[in-house]
Amino acid sequence: MPGDGETMGPAMSTDTASAPGSDDTAAPPRGPVTSASYSITVRLTADGDPASIGRIATAVGSAGGAVTAIDVVDSRSDGLTVDVTCSAADASHSEEMVEALRTVPGVKVRKVSDRTFLLHLGGKLEVASKVPMKTRDDLSMAYTPGVARVCMALADHPEDVRRLTIKGNTVAVVTDGSAVLGLGNIGPGAAMPVMEGKAVLFKRFADIDAWPICLDTQDVDEIVRTVELIAPGFGGINLEDIAAPRCFEIEARLREKLDIPVFHDDQHGTAIVALAALKNALRVVDKQLPDVKIVVAGGGAAGTAIVNLLLKAGAGQVLVWDREGILSPDDDRLTGAKLELARRTNPGAVRGELPDALDGADVFIGVSAGNILAVEDLARMAPRAVVFPMANPTPEVDPVRARQYAAVVASGRSDMPNQINNVLAFPGVFRGLLDARATEITDGMLLAAAEALAAVVKDDQLNANYIIPSVFDPEVTHAVAAAVADQARHEPGATAKVREDLG
Amino acid sequence: MPGDGETMGPAMSTDTASAPGSDDTAAPPRGPVTSASYSITVRLTADGDPASIGRIATAVGSAGGAVTAIDVVDSRSDGLTVDVTCSAADASHSEEMVEALRTVPGVKVRKVSDRTFLLHLGGKLEVASKVPMKTRDDLSMAYTPGVARVCMALADHPEDVRRLTIKGNTVAVVTDGSAVLGLGNIGPGAAMPVMEGKAVLFKRFADIDAWPICLDTQDVDEIVRTVELIAPGFGGINLEDIAAPRCFEIEARLREKLDIPVFHDDQHGTAIVALAALKNALRVVDKQLPDVKIVVAGGGAAGTAIVNLLLKAGAGQVLVWDREGILSPDDDRLTGAKLELARRTNPGAVRGELPDALDGADVFIGVSAGNILAVEDLARMAPRAVVFPMANPTPEVDPVRARQYAAVVASGRSDMPNQINNVLAFPGVFRGLLDARATEITDGMLLAAAEALAAVVKDDQLNANYIIPSVFDPEVTHAVAAAVADQARHEPGATAKVREDLG
Repeated sequence: MPGDGETMGPAMSTDTASAPGSDDTAAPPRGPVTSASYSITVRLTADGDPASIGRIATAVGSAGGAVTAIDVVDSRSDGLTVDVTCSAADASHSEEMVEALRTVPGVKVRKVSDRTFLLHLGGKLEVASKVPMKTRDDLSMAYTPGVARVCMALADHPEDVRRLTIKGNTVAVVTDGSAVLGLGNIGPGAAMPVMEGKAVLFKRFADIDAWPICLDTQDVDEIVRTVELIAPGFGGINLEDIAAPRCFEIEARLREKLDIPVFHDDQHGTAIVALAALKNALRVVDKQLPDVKIVVAGGGAAGTAIVNLLLKAGAGQVLVWDREGILSPDDDRLTGAKLELARRTNPGAVRGELPDALDGADVFIGVSAGNILAVEDLARMAPRAVVFPMANPTPEVDPVRARQYAAVVASGRSDMPNQINNVLAFPGVFRGLLDARATEITDGMLLAAAEALAAVVKDDQLNANYIIPSVFDPEVTHAVAAAVADQARHEPGATAKVREDLG
Repeated sequence: MPGDGETMGPAMSTDTASAPGSDDTAAPPRGPVTSASYSITVRLTADGDPASIGRIATAVGSAGGAVTAIDVVDSRSDGLTVDVTCSAADASHSEEMVEALRTVPGVKVRKVSDRTFLLHLGGKLEVASKVPMKTRDDLSMAYTPGVARVCMALADHPEDVRRLTIKGNTVAVVTDGSAVLGLGNIGPGAAMPVMEGKAVLFKRFADIDAWPICLDTQDVDEIVRTVELIAPGFGGINLEDIAAPRCFEIEARLREKLDIPVFHDDQHGTAIVALAALKNALRVVDKQLPDVKIVVAGGGAAGTAIVNLLLKAGAGQVLVWDREGILSPDDDRLTGAKLELARRTNPGAVRGELPDALDGADVFIGVSAGNILAVEDLARMAPRAVVFPMANPTPEVDPVRARQYAAVVASGRSDMPNQINNVLAFPGVFRGLLDARATEITDGMLLAAAEALAAVVKDDQLNANYIIPSVFDPEVTHAVAAAVADQARHEPGATAKVREDLG
């Protein structure tokens, strides 16, 4: 099924911050894992019985929910109005909790609000002015007539645009809505909340001003041309959630045309974090990258980028598996990017299914689909195996049970150790690129980012449950940014020239 | 010179907030008008003589500058380090002041900083998050996994994109850099400071989140297609500083294609403010719009839009003058938009130059070039004439001397009464469009905006020196927005449908 396989990768992108885990059928029995992302606020009225509050909390708990707040909105002699906020495991679980509340004697449910939807009302971003605008003098400097002198200076010295406009600190977050999270091809409008969220993360973690650009086309030529035409106002392009294989061509052509860096986060963000995690995992099991056998499941955007970066980093043996089986250069169903991948990874033309690939493998990296692997198959791997089932929301194999067979396990899940999360990479990468006024992004910079991210975990911190730092570790962005900027400044022609004097 | 004439209009756009007036050679002799937009900060060291500060202030004053601040940065026994901030009339005047400071005994000039350039360092805008991002729970609601539910809801109900994303409050400020202020075709990068300034004004005056999109093309098809493709994330398109005549085709085609309003501020913003000012001027001179003879100088973007709106508002007689003379339907040099303009305004095929057009005219509106009219020519107008020389930075005729011949004078200059400034229109217009979830903008809405803007000046406030409110009048945006939104809600099909329930 080569056709299916072509769109497989991006739908399995690991570009997610956590996974609810509720549909992870391979997991051992346990209570539902509740998440703030499914939390609801229920406004209800209760009669004057003082035991009402207790019964409300008990009802939520008996339905498996977690009460996170009870706010009394109004209290009168004949009763109370209360807002109960509780976390659920998923949408149907929310409904179960509301049903449980409806059965409490003396309680009437008035309104149910979904906190995630409330948070999204009006969107998540706004534009702020960095200059005062209270007086006519302010107006005359930030706008006409004063602004005209700045414009003329830029017309004479285009190289100053990065210093005298927002270009120096802005990134366009560009998508065509074709491979949004694991949701697939939902289009540009429905993709907006993800792109806005990405911009929030850019600001929060790297003080970068990012703006979502959701394109109403999925044609490669049109996407390339549009991004090219809007580029003058941006210091970088972050491509996001664009389906493979067209994401490869779009990125390659834009890199050729533009004098600002172009980065497809689903590819390179994932690759940087995976490589950083792998470096540290190999420190734990005391193996070397050139010596280990690595199996990558998923030949889409993320898988291709991971393989490329692994090879650049010195990996000696990599096999890629996708729906066609182990990708092999003699498989005449393969074309384009996948055939190219097969040629670079499998010179011996090994054929077989995923369990065959795992025979004697030291490392498994999954960026494919949930539950494609039985835990027992991991027994075929070499001793002290490293297993990264990164598919979201459901990993390729249950990470908890994988620990029976593997020395180190990492996944995309936020409720387990070693979360592989792109937020560890893209803010710092772009911070470094903008700081260095980079005109391009190179493999050397990606490798420097992975190296720096891995080095955030110090020797005395490193262990099988801590191979990668938390996304909230304040050192991460700084370390990655410094490494990327330093590398950019040392690569010939990778940064824009700067004039000393302005105006 | 039909070729010249085609690009004449936009270069004469009145979309400027004020005019320095320094190159207004027709003005009577007076001291230089200094402006904050030309202010500089000079860091200098002075020896221990206590009279130094006085000599510094005297030097600036004798060079015609105005000291606005003296800050002592460092004081030692052997001398002072001082930052002197002063306003100049223009760039060469700044240099004169610095030279004057260099001649002060015991003073050494260390560094000269241009305050307008300092203000522009790093750009004038930033992106801010409206949602918290401190904890893993925040991440799980604003980004994955919670955001996925919002995306799926939008895929099912695209009409909710305006409510659950930033689309509901955002405007793209789009230019091709072809007619920036009066500076001409300076390109997209050099246009950025103006577009950023526009976004600052959108935020300041209407709490709208606007983002600059500076396009690296001046091809009509490419501009139209690019704006169409980026439209999903925006609630409106503000075209800015695009040269005539292509601005007409770009706007018309985008209005046809998009389901969000498209507004070329150089055209319609100027037209709204000019019509509002004219309505009030006619109240002052007690004349009626259908009865007066109006002469418009300039057949570019602004002039064309002003004529269109005047005719929609009920003007009875309008003549347009441009470099070809009075635009006449029998002039075979005219083509396209200008020929169309001639046909709609000059059925009698009157020919002649600008002074001829003014014979017996009640109203002169200039959106052409500086000093094209002798003050004495105004004597040819009817009694109680209304004169709006709006070209920037230099008006068509000196507004001060025009008062000898005209009952009411208004211009683009901020240092005289009755400043015609687009900031009076575009923030309120877009606020109203977004509030009503408008899918288009109609002549009815433009007329409503002009009517509301005129009505901000109450009967007891109205006089020849106060026909239009200040840009800082807090009532302006609200009045314009309410009128536009009300009109939008009353026009069939002009607003998007809204669902009651979300999620």
